Amino acid sequence: MILVGYSILKKVVVGCEIPKPISGTLSGHAAGEPFDKYVYHEIKKQFPTETFRQYEYLNDLYAKNPTIIGFKARQELFDSPTVMFLLSRGKDATIKWSEENPFDEKQNDTADIVVVKNGFYEIVDVKTRNISKSAQPPNIISAYKLAQLCAKMIDNQEFNNFTISYFELDWKLENDKLVCKNAYFGNLFKAKPDELYINWAAAMQIQIHICDLDQTFNGTKAMWAKSYLKHFVIQARKRANDMITKFVIPFEKYIQ
Amino acid sequence: MILVGYSILKKVVVGCEIPKPISGTLSGHAAGEPFDKYVYHEIKKQFPTETFRQYEYLNDLYAKNPTIIGFKARQELFDSPTVMFLLSRGKDATIKWSEENPFDEKQNDTADIVVVKNGFYEIVDVKTRNISKSAQPPNIISAYKLAQLCAKMIDNQEFNNFTISYFELDWKLENDKLVCKNAYFGNLFKAKPDELYINWAAAMQIQIHICDLDQTFNGTKAMWAKSYLKHFVIQARKRANDMITKFVIPFEKYIQ
Repeated sequence: MILVGYSILKKVVVGCEIPKPISGTLSGHAAGEPFDKYVYHEIKKQFPTETFRQYEYLNDLYAKNPTIIGFKARQELFDSPTVMFLLSRGKDATIKWSEENPFDEKQNDTADIVVVKNGFYEIVDVKTRNISKSAQPPNIISAYKLAQLCAKMIDNQEFNNFTISYFELDWKLENDKLVCKNAYFGNLFKAKPDELYINWAAAMQIQIHICDLDQTFNGTKAMWAKSYLKHFVIQARKRANDMITKFVIPFEKYIQ
Repeated sequence: MILVGYSILKKVVVGCEIPKPISGTLSGHAAGEPFDKYVYHEIKKQFPTETFRQYEYLNDLYAKNPTIIGFKARQELFDSPTVMFLLSRGKDATIKWSEENPFDEKQNDTADIVVVKNGFYEIVDVKTRNISKSAQPPNIISAYKLAQLCAKMIDNQEFNNFTISYFELDWKLENDKLVCKNAYFGNLFKAKPDELYINWAAAMQIQIHICDLDQTFNGTKAMWAKSYLKHFVIQARKRANDMITKFVIPFEKYIQ
């Protein structure tokens, strides 16, 4: 299941213009941020009361349950171990949470946007891309976190209460405006798991431009999880071997 | 040998104030950059004609030798394979270089500043630190690059024609100004090599605050190089084993 109407979103977004940020530099995240906000507001039009920033969702959930305190009890509010794993914050932060001390945006949160409807969670990650520059593919998700997620899905037999979607927005600077030239969407669980590239040296991130994300996987989510875990284990073994070949063997002659 | 007078530099720098950058955000590199420039100009006062940005040094070297073209010939201008390895750019970029198409600053250059005197190279890396925030230690140098460097030092028996120094400048926002509160310096080859922390998942970077950098190593540079290579090989083996323990074994039960 996918909640968000990405085709509609794409139609609205492509062609839109935003003023160039004053800060000047058009590098990194900062430049794309206004587009990220734009996408959020457009999804909110589709799901006015069901669309959240990840930290907003947590603030909302804990504020609605003021008598539930402590780490474990707050974690159980998710009534899904898998979704809890994806969205909750660490132990310390969760214990310290209060209405006076709510969560703020955090860079390594899993989701930019969460749409929650009838107990189903769609996690949306927005990737903005300056197409005037060639840049390495963005971080999609930690390969290790995804392996842990797949293990949890299997442990808890939870396959149908959440999904993870990506929306790529390509922009360009034209006449002092940032103009959205194209957009793409993809669902993680429709991508062939054994083709996902893991960059072990870059915090073990899976990296790919969403426009290049394969969408031909036809099996169930249970099949996907098992297939991904197979891929992850093979790749981890390969990386461990490659480390010996590249970082140990060439230097051994110097240390005898 | 160390060229730069860091004690003098520290005296000049501590207490200095710069206006808060207009861009607003005080996160990341951007905020500290004016201090980096300040340090550069102060070192230039000590060595007016011998202080360069890394790209400036390359531009200068190639411009002074207009008849030397091609990758290999330009590399040989360094007359030190070790320094060449540290400072030169890639093959394509080096071939394409011309006075009309000079090098510009590059984020993953080894050096912020190079001081070159009588064939001796001091590479200086400036780390600016906002002490109002707790942040993870900065990247010092790629552990792999350093291993390759040590191997080259041994291969070429080049131990005394270069060094690598670090200068940490601690600052704080006070009354809309950035104020330098303290400064530290350290030399890589005075730090005990087997205590350097390698963050394998973060691009294999050695990470440490310069104020925490041990400076008690008393051996020769040849001893340092061998000792570092030993450390690197042990750590690489350990990481390869840890990968099996952490990323392979826990997930094997799911894929049988």
